[in-house]
Amino acid sequence: MKRAIVLLSGGLDSTTTLALVKKQRYEIYALTVAYGQKHSIEINAARRVAQWYGVTRHVIINLDLGLLGGSALTDDIKVPKDALGRGIPVTYVPARNTILLGLAIGWAEVIEARDIYLGVNALDYSGYPDCRPEFIRQFQRLSNVGTKQGVENKEYFRIHAPLIDKTKAEIIQLGTAHGVDYSLTHSCYDPDVTGKPCGRCDSCLLRARGFAEAGVRDPLL
Amino acid sequence: MKRAIVLLSGGLDSTTTLALVKKQRYEIYALTVAYGQKHSIEINAARRVAQWYGVTRHVIINLDLGLLGGSALTDDIKVPKDALGRGIPVTYVPARNTILLGLAIGWAEVIEARDIYLGVNALDYSGYPDCRPEFIRQFQRLSNVGTKQGVENKEYFRIHAPLIDKTKAEIIQLGTAHGVDYSLTHSCYDPDVTGKPCGRCDSCLLRARGFAEAGVRDPLL
Repeated sequence: MKRAIVLLSGGLDSTTTLALVKKQRYEIYALTVAYGQKHSIEINAARRVAQWYGVTRHVIINLDLGLLGGSALTDDIKVPKDALGRGIPVTYVPARNTILLGLAIGWAEVIEARDIYLGVNALDYSGYPDCRPEFIRQFQRLSNVGTKQGVENKEYFRIHAPLIDKTKAEIIQLGTAHGVDYSLTHSCYDPDVTGKPCGRCDSCLLRARGFAEAGVRDPLL
Repeated sequence: MKRAIVLLSGGLDSTTTLALVKKQRYEIYALTVAYGQKHSIEINAARRVAQWYGVTRHVIINLDLGLLGGSALTDDIKVPKDALGRGIPVTYVPARNTILLGLAIGWAEVIEARDIYLGVNALDYSGYPDCRPEFIRQFQRLSNVGTKQGVENKEYFRIHAPLIDKTKAEIIQLGTAHGVDYSLTHSCYDPDVTGKPCGRCDSCLLRARGFAEAGVRDPLL
């Protein structure tokens, strides 16, 4: 059976992506990176989701991006509340998807997987440059130049971002149609100590708007 | 003063690169990744070199690539001895330079550095796909698409590989002319517990040949 790697944060988008991959004939390898995010509770969500879908293997890698700073998700910068701003917000983690995809293709080489899935989306997103189709295309090109598999087998890697042109509402409708249990997921950037979502950060606001527009009840609330 | 990031492994090439950067007007930020390499003693070499050159900051990030496997440098695979083989050897670490450069551009965004230096070289190298000019060019393109700085400032990042077309002998001659003290560096993939080089792995063989061809004595021997 073909193998696929799914980047799994434990959030709504990556969980929906995993559900879509599950419908295809793949052995699934899930990769989660504990990059020093304040909302490290999402690692537990990733664990729950990986277990629920019975992935072949789930690897969690520690990588303290907080050492490099520069993001409200890893640093002493406050997570903004109550407003979906314009431009690239301070929750942007510098070069995160380049790093995550770098790890994914590294693993993919080892297990001989050609297909990498990630849940980025460019509509209803938070303005992150590394969630755009242009970035995904460039990364795919790079992966086929900078790896053993890419050099030895033409067009080896395929980077799939099946949600890239969907709104949050469309993602939730798609996931719901595929039976995703969104109570397993976590979205909030700034949960309290018990893990309860703040309801006011970008990620909570986008999630709430998505469920409202999809006409679905959020099982977390 | 402009800032530059130098990827510093503690080996001969990255140390020579640092010496070259030092001659220019830069504040230098050195980045070392402890990626689970068996020769973790090279981290100590990186520390010595960073200190010797008085870099502004030296960050060492832990990232256990051994979890993903696939390389003789991080895994239970034996480091080959006594032969510089053809093709890509088992000491290749899957996607290593993509991951390292991803971390470098992430940090560069935060400290507002545009220039990233790394010591890869495509001649006299070990056959690694991510040491070729084509890879460096692609990565530079990616970095200007997948980051905040790259999107907001046209052609922001410059990835420099000043040794890329040099032989090991030329690198040693260049470094020697720049006063590099190669006794600070470490090259062996498979040192003994005291840190003594094995003298027989690819990295030792390339180093020995380089010093011989350069007509310079290796201060480590």
